[in-house]
Amino acid sequence: MITHNKLTIGLFGFGVVGEGLYKVLQQTPSLNASIKKVCIKHFGKKRNAPASLFTTDKDDLLNDRDINVIVEVIDDATAAFEIVTTALQNGKDVVSASKKMIAENLTALLALQQQTGRSLLYESAACASIPVIRNLEEYYDNDLLHSIKAIVNGSTNFILTKIFEEGLDFKQALLLAQQSGFAESNPKLDVEGYDAVNKWTFLLTHAYGITESPKNILFNGIQNIHSRDAETAAARKQEIKLVAQAKKLKNGSVAAFVLPQFINQDDHLAFVKNEYNGVVIESGFADKQFFYGKGAGSFPTASAVLSDISALRYGYKYEYKKLYHHHPHELTDDFFLNVYISFDDIEAVPKEKFEWIEEWHAQEGRKYLSGVIAFSKLKSSNWWKENGVSLILLPDPVIEEVASKKIKKKSLELAGIF
Amino acid sequence: MITHNKLTIGLFGFGVVGEGLYKVLQQTPSLNASIKKVCIKHFGKKRNAPASLFTTDKDDLLNDRDINVIVEVIDDATAAFEIVTTALQNGKDVVSASKKMIAENLTALLALQQQTGRSLLYESAACASIPVIRNLEEYYDNDLLHSIKAIVNGSTNFILTKIFEEGLDFKQALLLAQQSGFAESNPKLDVEGYDAVNKWTFLLTHAYGITESPKNILFNGIQNIHSRDAETAAARKQEIKLVAQAKKLKNGSVAAFVLPQFINQDDHLAFVKNEYNGVVIESGFADKQFFYGKGAGSFPTASAVLSDISALRYGYKYEYKKLYHHHPHELTDDFFLNVYISFDDIEAVPKEKFEWIEEWHAQEGRKYLSGVIAFSKLKSSNWWKENGVSLILLPDPVIEEVASKKIKKKSLELAGIF
Repeated sequence: MITHNKLTIGLFGFGVVGEGLYKVLQQTPSLNASIKKVCIKHFGKKRNAPASLFTTDKDDLLNDRDINVIVEVIDDATAAFEIVTTALQNGKDVVSASKKMIAENLTALLALQQQTGRSLLYESAACASIPVIRNLEEYYDNDLLHSIKAIVNGSTNFILTKIFEEGLDFKQALLLAQQSGFAESNPKLDVEGYDAVNKWTFLLTHAYGITESPKNILFNGIQNIHSRDAETAAARKQEIKLVAQAKKLKNGSVAAFVLPQFINQDDHLAFVKNEYNGVVIESGFADKQFFYGKGAGSFPTASAVLSDISALRYGYKYEYKKLYHHHPHELTDDFFLNVYISFDDIEAVPKEKFEWIEEWHAQEGRKYLSGVIAFSKLKSSNWWKENGVSLILLPDPVIEEVASKKIKKKSLELAGIF
Repeated sequence: MITHNKLTIGLFGFGVVGEGLYKVLQQTPSLNASIKKVCIKHFGKKRNAPASLFTTDKDDLLNDRDINVIVEVIDDATAAFEIVTTALQNGKDVVSASKKMIAENLTALLALQQQTGRSLLYESAACASIPVIRNLEEYYDNDLLHSIKAIVNGSTNFILTKIFEEGLDFKQALLLAQQSGFAESNPKLDVEGYDAVNKWTFLLTHAYGITESPKNILFNGIQNIHSRDAETAAARKQEIKLVAQAKKLKNGSVAAFVLPQFINQDDHLAFVKNEYNGVVIESGFADKQFFYGKGAGSFPTASAVLSDISALRYGYKYEYKKLYHHHPHELTDDFFLNVYISFDDIEAVPKEKFEWIEEWHAQEGRKYLSGVIAFSKLKSSNWWKENGVSLILLPDPVIEEVASKKIKKKSLELAGIF
């Protein structure tokens, strides 16, 4: 047996993931990795580990020269960033599970890795047990990556599955998700899409070399989905999923967003139920590939953290190949989306912003339409998230050019719909 | 942009994969890899590339000091082994797509890699576009890998899909597979399971550190599957798939084999249709993961070869972590299988070899039974492949202990079935 770097770990956080990791490491002695100290916020509660393991002083870990790896699984993005920054500067490798912290500080973290030469790994931060980051790093020369779409948030997928498979309404489904441990007591981050767009931010870096703030990526969650939308989907033998996606356009720029979408039964993403995650990659020559696994939960997350720890034994670093070794792609707003919109009040929908309207159901009660709208017009205002409006993408949502169909807008105008 | 090793490639073989690769490389200039020379068997036919590119003398490639990478996609395992051996010894890195050659010479190839320090990559040899080898290398510390099961042969899966979804009989389905380019004109290697067990041989190395000759791995193909079996499957809302699988037993040894199996609709492998491949991995903490993609065809294979070429730019080598860095697992014959067997002639089935028999249908025409049999008893004789007998695994086929059920055998004896 070849010997490897012995890893002495300083662990921040002992919640479900931290404790899961502690148990996992105890069961895998072959890893040659041990936790020397765990930093927690308060001593208060009883923990399933020796009291001598714990401290509340972060410097006990960050300044300990024995500790060569900092693992950070805490829930506070600001504190996490400070810990990760100091750890890298102190010459330690870092494994982090904080999607929000990584997404919001991507540029700074990239620079820090280059300055310090240390490794920062965060496979667990996206899709937990699915090794999506390393696959994007190692495969799919970015000339070849046509598109990637994914279900990256287990909570919303669990809720949507319960709505579609068991007929629960949104509130019941959310409650069940919370009771089953798949949604936080404050579910806003998951339900409104913040968690998904954070993950998508750095997945875009590994997929296409894009380094964009999550603020600049269009997203929504599932909070506005109306029972009428679920009925429409069911009538069309479709489901609704919260899909993060990116597609390379003909001019080489990339369209990317996180929005609810109608999904056909034969779409690979329809296979992804409950708290699972799934990733569909279309590339030039490999055709479609599909990766599927548990995207949340203490053990799947701990398992991904463990993979990163294991990789550190061999000195693994992300090379950010699409960013540094290729010509990185850029995000664009210059394309159109095929959307469905439902609403109570017709005044809430600025119909004149649409290129054209394909379907129009203005009955009593909940109304809906489907049509094509410029992405830039969605990005520049929030009417489609407000006033009880629900926007859901249609299958194959991205349209690169609409010029030839302008005639149709004209014809709709003449027909009096506008 | 960081600069990388410039790759100058000598290519052996210009069939569908070789030509596919040539086209792919022309379309990805960013790879900084070019084909200097192509070795073919005969000049005869017209090829879609400049004549000056071709030679029939293998030494033109193997002795060219400019050429630092040999890519080998020929159809002759003996010639391929000689090429790969010489190339490694001459200090060149090698990418190979020859599953048979790799499976049959695994030990020699492992030794050669260690002696020469060169890299031998063969992602395309298993599951083509699914990056299964590198995922097994990089993930799933082998203490954690509970089981892996996979559809690794696209031809047989195509045939079985056509039988189950379109009601074709075996011969029609095989003909369609051949016409669609998913089966060779001599389909024996695919249909009788040789191709699958070859792939399984080296996947077991990357999964569990097992280095076994394909001769010692129990396998069969789909050649004996009877229309009666398809009817039985349909009546149970199941399909039949050719499944390669391995499972870690409680004592740490591994049960592994390649056999047809009844698959429930909710099994991830049921999702895998036509020429696609799929891999389901169950690990200690990540739960189930599922990888899916095209397992055959010129472009998916060329794409996997390309991934390997791309990895050589960064000096990537397989570390064979499960073999060299962990305690490798060993194959065992000491377990039992849950099987279904159909047959015309009751004399062809040695009933006394079964631990017990669960079901027994001795009607006129095609008969069948299901029961439990020691794996070692299947390994020691071939009656279950011959005389028109068809053996198909039941879902969850592996049974570690049967002692408590011996009573049942007794009871069946009393009931006069034996």
